[in-house]
Amino acid sequence: MAGSLVNALAGSATVAEAFSDAATLRHMLRFEAALTRAVAAAGLIPARHVATIEACCDPALYQPAALVPVARRALTLTVAVVKALTEQVAARDAEAAGFVHWGATSQDVIDTALVLQLGDAMPPLLAGLSDIVAALAALAGEHRTTSMLGRTLQQPATPIAFGQKVAGWAADLERARRRLAQSFADTQVLQFGGASGSLSALGDAGGPVMAALARDLGLALPAAPWFANRVRVAAFAQDIALVVGALAKAARDISLMMQFEVGEIAEPSGPGRGKSSTMPHKRNPVGAGLALTAAARAPQLAATIVAAMPQENERALGGWQAEWTTLAGLVETLGSAVDGIAEIAPGLAVDAGRMRRNLEATHGAVLAERATFLLAGEMGKTRAAGLVEAALASGQPFVEALGRFRAELSDELALLGYSPRFVDRLLAEIADEG
Amino acid sequence: MAGSLVNALAGSATVAEAFSDAATLRHMLRFEAALTRAVAAAGLIPARHVATIEACCDPALYQPAALVPVARRALTLTVAVVKALTEQVAARDAEAAGFVHWGATSQDVIDTALVLQLGDAMPPLLAGLSDIVAALAALAGEHRTTSMLGRTLQQPATPIAFGQKVAGWAADLERARRRLAQSFADTQVLQFGGASGSLSALGDAGGPVMAALARDLGLALPAAPWFANRVRVAAFAQDIALVVGALAKAARDISLMMQFEVGEIAEPSGPGRGKSSTMPHKRNPVGAGLALTAAARAPQLAATIVAAMPQENERALGGWQAEWTTLAGLVETLGSAVDGIAEIAPGLAVDAGRMRRNLEATHGAVLAERATFLLAGEMGKTRAAGLVEAALASGQPFVEALGRFRAELSDELALLGYSPRFVDRLLAEIADEG
Amino acid sequence: MAGSLVNALAGSATVAEAFSDAATLRHMLRFEAALTRAVAAAGLIPARHVATIEACCDPALYQPAALVPVARRALTLTVAVVKALTEQVAARDAEAAGFVHWGATSQDVIDTALVLQLGDAMPPLLAGLSDIVAALAALAGEHRTTSMLGRTLQQPATPIAFGQKVAGWAADLERARRRLAQSFADTQVLQFGGASGSLSALGDAGGPVMAALARDLGLALPAAPWFANRVRVAAFAQDIALVVGALAKAARDISLMMQFEVGEIAEPSGPGRGKSSTMPHKRNPVGAGLALTAAARAPQLAATIVAAMPQENERALGGWQAEWTTLAGLVETLGSAVDGIAEIAPGLAVDAGRMRRNLEATHGAVLAERATFLLAGEMGKTRAAGLVEAALASGQPFVEALGRFRAELSDELALLGYSPRFVDRLLAEIADEG
Amino acid sequence: MAGSLVNALAGSATVAEAFSDAATLRHMLRFEAALTRAVAAAGLIPARHVATIEACCDPALYQPAALVPVARRALTLTVAVVKALTEQVAARDAEAAGFVHWGATSQDVIDTALVLQLGDAMPPLLAGLSDIVAALAALAGEHRTTSMLGRTLQQPATPIAFGQKVAGWAADLERARRRLAQSFADTQVLQFGGASGSLSALGDAGGPVMAALARDLGLALPAAPWFANRVRVAAFAQDIALVVGALAKAARDISLMMQFEVGEIAEPSGPGRGKSSTMPHKRNPVGAGLALTAAARAPQLAATIVAAMPQENERALGGWQAEWTTLAGLVETLGSAVDGIAEIAPGLAVDAGRMRRNLEATHGAVLAERATFLLAGEMGKTRAAGLVEAALASGQPFVEALGRFRAELSDELALLGYSPRFVDRLLAEIADEG
Repeated sequence: MAGSLVNALAGSATVAEAFSDAATLRHMLRFEAALTRAVAAAGLIPARHVATIEACCDPALYQPAALVPVARRALTLTVAVVKALTEQVAARDAEAAGFVHWGATSQDVIDTALVLQLGDAMPPLLAGLSDIVAALAALAGEHRTTSMLGRTLQQPATPIAFGQKVAGWAADLERARRRLAQSFADTQVLQFGGASGSLSALGDAGGPVMAALARDLGLALPAAPWFANRVRVAAFAQDIALVVGALAKAARDISLMMQFEVGEIAEPSGPGRGKSSTMPHKRNPVGAGLALTAAARAPQLAATIVAAMPQENERALGGWQAEWTTLAGLVETLGSAVDGIAEIAPGLAVDAGRMRRNLEATHGAVLAERATFLLAGEMGKTRAAGLVEAALASGQPFVEALGRFRAELSDELALLGYSPRFVDRLLAEIADEG
Repeated sequence: MAGSLVNALAGSATVAEAFSDAATLRHMLRFEAALTRAVAAAGLIPARHVATIEACCDPALYQPAALVPVARRALTLTVAVVKALTEQVAARDAEAAGFVHWGATSQDVIDTALVLQLGDAMPPLLAGLSDIVAALAALAGEHRTTSMLGRTLQQPATPIAFGQKVAGWAADLERARRRLAQSFADTQVLQFGGASGSLSALGDAGGPVMAALARDLGLALPAAPWFANRVRVAAFAQDIALVVGALAKAARDISLMMQFEVGEIAEPSGPGRGKSSTMPHKRNPVGAGLALTAAARAPQLAATIVAAMPQENERALGGWQAEWTTLAGLVETLGSAVDGIAEIAPGLAVDAGRMRRNLEATHGAVLAERATFLLAGEMGKTRAAGLVEAALASGQPFVEALGRFRAELSDELALLGYSPRFVDRLLAEIADEG
Repeated sequence: MAGSLVNALAGSATVAEAFSDAATLRHMLRFEAALTRAVAAAGLIPARHVATIEACCDPALYQPAALVPVARRALTLTVAVVKALTEQVAARDAEAAGFVHWGATSQDVIDTALVLQLGDAMPPLLAGLSDIVAALAALAGEHRTTSMLGRTLQQPATPIAFGQKVAGWAADLERARRRLAQSFADTQVLQFGGASGSLSALGDAGGPVMAALARDLGLALPAAPWFANRVRVAAFAQDIALVVGALAKAARDISLMMQFEVGEIAEPSGPGRGKSSTMPHKRNPVGAGLALTAAARAPQLAATIVAAMPQENERALGGWQAEWTTLAGLVETLGSAVDGIAEIAPGLAVDAGRMRRNLEATHGAVLAERATFLLAGEMGKTRAAGLVEAALASGQPFVEALGRFRAELSDELALLGYSPRFVDRLLAEIADEG
Repeated sequence: MAGSLVNALAGSATVAEAFSDAATLRHMLRFEAALTRAVAAAGLIPARHVATIEACCDPALYQPAALVPVARRALTLTVAVVKALTEQVAARDAEAAGFVHWGATSQDVIDTALVLQLGDAMPPLLAGLSDIVAALAALAGEHRTTSMLGRTLQQPATPIAFGQKVAGWAADLERARRRLAQSFADTQVLQFGGASGSLSALGDAGGPVMAALARDLGLALPAAPWFANRVRVAAFAQDIALVVGALAKAARDISLMMQFEVGEIAEPSGPGRGKSSTMPHKRNPVGAGLALTAAARAPQLAATIVAAMPQENERALGGWQAEWTTLAGLVETLGSAVDGIAEIAPGLAVDAGRMRRNLEATHGAVLAERATFLLAGEMGKTRAAGLVEAALASGQPFVEALGRFRAELSDELALLGYSPRFVDRLLAEIADEG
């Protein structure tokens, strides 16, 4: 697997910890320890072995590098870990070694470890998203009447409030965040089914052991094992891509407004931020760049998970094995995007003067729509458009050339139309816990 | 665009109608007519022109083939339709022609038409999904104690109830269906913002016109236009892929169980179903094939929508224009998968005898796990596994070779473990409207 | 399937014809006629039936709409077409009807029809690509010393020749075009294998019939049938996405340079081109928009084909059936992108004055790198960078503030470095038929 | 970034080394050292500093963990590495520190390091692919007349030679391998352009320095920098996915033939291979599983690279930064698939007896096509099919029920049709160096 340098722009520290080898071992061994307690409590194995096995469920006892080749030969990491654990137990108590991993299958351990890893990684990211939404909402509120040039198809259109743009980012991000919060919560269920999902190795104790295991691990109890029924997993994966997409929408706009020729906004500066290796004058859009980088990866990573959904029978060959690395990649991608936008959302430098100058630089062309409709109320749109086009073509300042509606076309607030009220409605939507 | 033959396995009749040229024109013109009523009611245009414009909002007046090249030159179909509509109106009343498409922008018309098309296409598909869930749930209930071979990594594992497999399909599909029902409902909002999303052409009437338009079209009123904020659209696209994936999971299993060498299930037969063009003996898995075909396409189509989310400013260049054809493709894909599974779910022919024979053909190997755990309760798993492997290697029938636990290993229901109870729990989950 | 309006920005006229129902029927029936001639020539069927069957291989005799439901029931269009063809023949000569579709399987007909459709669609697109490369190369040559601002990470960097940018587009597009020309040529092979790919129905005549069929259809003879070995198809699909990506790279730059605030380039104008439905002043980037729209779709369509490659045994279930519609979509996407760029490449309006003004607007900051290196030759880069940063921060014109190297920093051609020579080398690479 | 355990089934040892932090630093510093030599040779910097800078280009001097946060603040790893290198040099010779990284830009270093990493990783993988092709070709030759059941749409079709199936895998894999060998070779070019790609910092020495640098690093000299022209990179990425797809085609078939109910083939066994964590009897398809896991990921990873092609101006924001991690992931994916199939291709255990029994178990149904055509020569296909269907429906052994053509239908070799000759032709195609 590629090192941390190749992936430097792809992940984030919080997430890296959750999917580190130490964390993977910790969660897999936590499952094994909890399982041992549960089957002992159900009387399936002698209670005296619990402490021995628990003592061996210490990640520090294991070497990740030694486990990987074993895992590849078995097509599952669990075989490697259970083998190493069994050896550790056997070294202390040969008899106890016979009661390790009682009744579980490899996917029980891996899916549950994945779920626990998500449980570690996601709450700070969801909190970070809420902070971003709050920062953007505050910014939108500040700029509910700040005029700027609306741009469509990369061309000037009509004026809007800068606050509407920002509130649009925030409200859509909040919509995506709520979905992700729910689909993350839905993933927090135990995986436990034994070989084929029937818990048959445990006899009548299967149900109680399953319930005890869920309690011990702090996870919800599913109606049944979900080995090859991956809607929960795929929905979560997709919602990550959705949130990354919403973050990247803001990033796209920021990067466009930060262009030297536009200059309406700037990322907050700081030591080392956005430096060039060769050009002293540059200040690059770094936070936006991280989010756009994430958005270049997330949709396809999510598609990988969804494309793997038609999994064979009780455990898939290929489709399931591709999930873990991909889900880790998705959460890393989200972490990187959250870090990127969290660093810039609260400190975006807005140049309202430049926004106004960019509007004025169109020499009134952006008033053409409003002028057309003002005229058209009298003469219909076709004739009105003719007058307006002539005024635009005259080379004179537009309002002069048009010679009418000077007051209306100079009332900046009026030209914003419903923009400020849209800001209010979007902010209310965000505030509504609904 | 490719004809109906190249796409024969990719779509469905219901959906095709919703995205047909007739429907596209109908919805776009319905928007224009409703807009005209709303702006006239607000006093922005003379009321006398409403009837003239409404009369021209008749799809039969327009030739789709003539609109396409105009649309491509303008990079939007709306320009083509509005131009043609304006000409129609002008032919009746030159003055009225000046009041067409008042205050709207091209994306208002297209996004709203898309929303209305989804409103036509989706309800029957969601109903079809509910019917499929019900049919599968009934089948699962019938087979809560029907033993079959569980299979993992394409190899025999331990026995499960066939009902658990089917209930697993149904419950996961229902989970996906509920998500889609919600994200579809979320799409049913008006798009209306004028040039840049501020409704500035309408002055203070913007809000009331927007509300009237939503009422007229039977759509919800959004907090603001959502031109370049596409979370609703992307969430819907992803949930379609999710449902298709859940349908294809069932299809995958059906196709594997239908293999001649497995023979545990068969699609219902019927005239012309699954015929080969050259082999008289064949009966191919057609419904499953349609769902698997759909699942080969849907994840990437959804990824296209999500990848397009970082849209530029107030209207994107490229990212938005790629959506309509892709969303239509996604809904068609869902329609094809629903058709395919709806045709087979209620009539799947289950061969319980063959399921039992396939279990028995393993010569007891699938009992190895249960035997191991029965023995292991006495001697630990390591020694137990040794005895079991020796029995498997002996060539004798396993239960004989093992010489013990004959009763336990012959109690078929016991060997199913919690499988029947998992069926019950999954069916209860489906029934829970929550 | 969605109508032409929903897909208006997604396809192109040439391509639509190649994948139309008429063309699909024509090619499928052409296969059947050629097959009949070949098996009759081999003495496998009575020669007297050839004329009757050939007479029925007339597309005008068949109704596409009636074929679709039959195709869906059989999971293959061939069953529908062969059934209809057989009925037509039977109506003329009941005996002859027994000799239709002799020894072929459904995939023989569909894959060969696909190959023939590609043979219709691709040559004009490849020629269009060559024209685009030539137009861009000519433009690059004209501007080998036209200075403009280089931009990295959406920020100003150092000057480059506009010609280098354009030559970069052209050379990379040519690289992709050559790959596509080859992978298209590789697709032009017959598919013919009979039921499982062994031609067993034909006995020893299999080889000769296969060769005759290839000759008749003007296709190359493959070493063997390639039913489930799809490298040719997938390579072709990927190379389409590659070419679309290379076209969209040019489109991205054009759309950025066309921004009002940048204004360095404009698409050629023309009646109806880039019109807004509501804003008279707008001229939108239409050709670039079509290419960017295509590029939003093509990578995922190609991924669909590649993801389907692990096809089951001698004919896949799902993976193969998803190909036809997807490949047609890819070729349409390419057609749309080619149309879009072909319309603008020869007539791009370049504003060299604005390029210079945009350079000057940086107040010398873009000279900072060159100045740093000039100074650094004397004092090392660290000290030099300090002097340069101080000059930039002084607020004075940079060259003044720096007070040195006025001549070097004012020699515009020198500031272009190797840019003009890179233009020459890229154009030579394009010209090299290699 | 996720640890080695989460990625255990996703990579391979060779590839991991090439993209390790040590290798990344080694190649980046190798670039810096070579650059220093080249600019000193051109007289741009004092020759006396070369040795000092070279001495600091030792990867052991740097801590990857310290570089990552610096890289993220600058949106490029180069800034972090150059800063650390400059500090190292400064600690030895403050003056020399002013001559580090002379005239290069961040992307020069990263793209060239990537190219050098590919140069390390790919040759063993390409050799491994050739070995796989050779092993499969040998297996195909051994089985050019081994009869087995051809299967289409997951249902029995007609007999084929097992050798044709295997030769089909081999020939298609070889086709893909040749493409990849070429597109890998095409990547082996220097990246060197300075800030915007004009080498303007180097004055007239730009060209000679570029040439010297390419020579020093053993890379080809491109016509020009290719910062935002990524056809080479994207073509390479796609061809990796193509090869993985071709490997996974073999894996799919192997996994299907290995099913217990089919039992025609088995992966070679070995210690720990394919073990279950709970079921002693299982032997899972491990090598095939690794290839199928790879194929679940590669198409989307390739699509990420292609989707990023429309990169902005002279260096992209987002699209380029997403490449490195993705390309490393692709090469790892290929490595894992090659490892998986290389382990099994030479030792696949073929059960020709079981193949025959599976054929016979169809009770002659698979002869139906051949029988139909034998009869049809006399009576046309319609009547012949009627007779054949009656024979199939009779319940008797098919050849008996049909009562004719016993000799023809019992000549196993004849029933293979052209299968053995197709094997020969495919093997010849592989042997042809093209």
